[in-house]
Amino acid sequence: MELAQLLSITRNAEEMIEDAGRTAYQSFDKKKKGSTQKFIRMLVEKRHESVLEHGVATVRIRGSRAFTHQLVRHRLCSYTQKSQRYVNEAQFNYIEPESIRDNEEAHSLFVDFMDKAKEVYVKLQQLGVKNEDARYVLPNAVETEIVVTANFRQWRHIIATRGAPAAQLEIRKVAIAVFKILNRYAPNVFSDFVVNEETATVSLLKPQK
Amino acid sequence: MELAQLLSITRNAEEMIEDAGRTAYQSFDKKKKGSTQKFIRMLVEKRHESVLEHGVATVRIRGSRAFTHQLVRHRLCSYTQKSQRYVNEAQFNYIEPESIRDNEEAHSLFVDFMDKAKEVYVKLQQLGVKNEDARYVLPNAVETEIVVTANFRQWRHIIATRGAPAAQLEIRKVAIAVFKILNRYAPNVFSDFVVNEETATVSLLKPQK
Amino acid sequence: MELAQLLSITRNAEEMIEDAGRTAYQSFDKKKKGSTQKFIRMLVEKRHESVLEHGVATVRIRGSRAFTHQLVRHRLCSYTQKSQRYVNEAQFNYIEPESIRDNEEAHSLFVDFMDKAKEVYVKLQQLGVKNEDARYVLPNAVETEIVVTANFRQWRHIIATRGAPAAQLEIRKVAIAVFKILNRYAPNVFSDFVVNEETATVSLLKPQK
Amino acid sequence: MELAQLLSITRNAEEMIEDAGRTAYQSFDKKKKGSTQKFIRMLVEKRHESVLEHGVATVRIRGSRAFTHQLVRHRLCSYTQKSQRYVNEAQFNYIEPESIRDNEEAHSLFVDFMDKAKEVYVKLQQLGVKNEDARYVLPNAVETEIVVTANFRQWRHIIATRGAPAAQLEIRKVAIAVFKILNRYAPNVFSDFVVNEETATVSLLKPQK
Repeated sequence: MELAQLLSITRNAEEMIEDAGRTAYQSFDKKKKGSTQKFIRMLVEKRHESVLEHGVATVRIRGSRAFTHQLVRHRLCSYTQKSQRYVNEAQFNYIEPESIRDNEEAHSLFVDFMDKAKEVYVKLQQLGVKNEDARYVLPNAVETEIVVTANFRQWRHIIATRGAPAAQLEIRKVAIAVFKILNRYAPNVFSDFVVNEETATVSLLKPQK
Repeated sequence: MELAQLLSITRNAEEMIEDAGRTAYQSFDKKKKGSTQKFIRMLVEKRHESVLEHGVATVRIRGSRAFTHQLVRHRLCSYTQKSQRYVNEAQFNYIEPESIRDNEEAHSLFVDFMDKAKEVYVKLQQLGVKNEDARYVLPNAVETEIVVTANFRQWRHIIATRGAPAAQLEIRKVAIAVFKILNRYAPNVFSDFVVNEETATVSLLKPQK
Repeated sequence: MELAQLLSITRNAEEMIEDAGRTAYQSFDKKKKGSTQKFIRMLVEKRHESVLEHGVATVRIRGSRAFTHQLVRHRLCSYTQKSQRYVNEAQFNYIEPESIRDNEEAHSLFVDFMDKAKEVYVKLQQLGVKNEDARYVLPNAVETEIVVTANFRQWRHIIATRGAPAAQLEIRKVAIAVFKILNRYAPNVFSDFVVNEETATVSLLKPQK
Repeated sequence: MELAQLLSITRNAEEMIEDAGRTAYQSFDKKKKGSTQKFIRMLVEKRHESVLEHGVATVRIRGSRAFTHQLVRHRLCSYTQKSQRYVNEAQFNYIEPESIRDNEEAHSLFVDFMDKAKEVYVKLQQLGVKNEDARYVLPNAVETEIVVTANFRQWRHIIATRGAPAAQLEIRKVAIAVFKILNRYAPNVFSDFVVNEETATVSLLKPQK
């Protein structure tokens, strides 16, 4: 599976946002062929972001538990995450940071430690320890899966804060992946973001006022 | 326009919720023909409502400002409302409570007063008062229009609290109208509600534990 | 009563925020005499606003129903409002917009209309209409009372958006009044706001990036 | 440090809640000596929980990263957590589940593995890996510290859901510890909870309707 996969997005999201947004000024007569792009870009430009909340997307994401512990701090999303209490992690996958993978000695230490973790986890299970307690040995690197539903305003916020240089590489890559998906379906809503592949960041073209 | 009109709802909402929900226990292999109904009803029964948040619906509602002032107290929704600051209300429609409409003398007082309000509003405009200030004379009865996006968990909460006997008639009717719409698209998510047309209420079949 | 009155605020709010905030970097040893001002201003400057959420204030506010319908759109607050369903409004007070008060003819129309509203409301009551329905004739101008609890981050947001020139005069005055109260107790948290009495606005010294 | 430590709580919280709550019905004349207990218990009994939101408490909690990843899923709180990106974890403490501690063989495996984790973490640091990446080897058991601000309604929700038998032991103990603290300051707000020390649970005396 890729890093991020779209499960659902508001149908004709930008037209629907226009429909909803024109309620405020009762300007329905201005909705016509070609008006959507202009209307949405005006909302983005003027930071009338509350109207963007009518568009919603659900994304399935894979990553480390280090990453999801960061992600779920965003409180305006709905989450369903793979449970380490109930799922058997005897065969866990893991995320290796690039800075470790690119250093031969570090890489070797890391891989051996992941094997060790798996071994200890299984032994604890065999001693009758439940998954929910055995998982206390599982490293942050262990892969998890999380389904996230958020509205476009919130996705914009996540992309802006987690795609920024100050964020960690793993979550920056998620921000980029989510941006690329959403941008295909709602290009005007996300029209003020730009990806820099070299630095693995995604930023607003002009900082928000 | 009817009381409530659907603008958007998650495509194949119940299947999508099942997809998302099976992430927790990684029980994707149990998803098969006919599994959705059982899965969703289990979520509802066990009150695992967080999974229902992956389904989202947007509804356009008409009603009085008395009603919308109640409605917008629900904080887990996204709203776009007709603006009394910017829209000219010289021709406003209004909502008349049934208890007034059904009493000839009260009805007559009410209708005359609405005319009076319109007249004063227009005179204030003519004196150079802006809409945003002239509206201070507008009664609670004045019709407004609001677009509401909420997830299914929140819609369930709104229907349960605002469809209950303790709620006021206007908002109970909205609760019923929204329930009927959503129930067409996600019958299992809303399967534990029942409408009583006589009392104009909608209630949970069994009270929540 | 004044426009706004403080009911409660976090004791030693800024020191408490410093205590909480130093958890992130475990920099408790840097907490010493005089460190609080610098720490809080650094949070404000760097927009680490999540830490400011540990400070909370509760304010009682009086104003029109036009104003509270705007206010309660802020979803990250807790509200308790005077109920027009249960309280008898036969003697209601009202808020008169300055643009009306300052125009003799408009003022006279407005005052007469308020009397008319009171009269119709009472007649409806006498005809057996319940308060909750009689209130449909009450104008937006009718005074209400609302108790609002919010954290400092949210109060900053309310002050910034509702104290801005684009906001309406009544709510701008509330923003100023709340700012002045909170600024007495947490001067560093609100150190980047400035009131302009002439225009009745309160703004950030430098726009947020 | 104990499991949980109070950093701040609304001064005279229950009286303040009464003050705020009496706004709805304008029943300020009924506030007198001895009225607070009755008023608060009525709110709890009738589930008028929105009024309880005017009381707020901030608690510092220690526990494993397994525990905090559960805790921060509660979205109506404000959190500041010890950062594994910036803090050096070379000397980390850890939480050992009782089921492991009470099994000699499991305990020995667990302790050795924690030492191993520490060793690998330090070696990665020495190889130039940053803390934020080295932490990918840190187990869920590693102790963290989190400051949580929430209102009483939300604390009630956390205590009820995380003190229940279905919750894991570590978080149940936190629920009990927080309950005991808050109960000292707002005994009526929490008067319908009871602790069972034997099963390490805290429950509502009667299930919520």
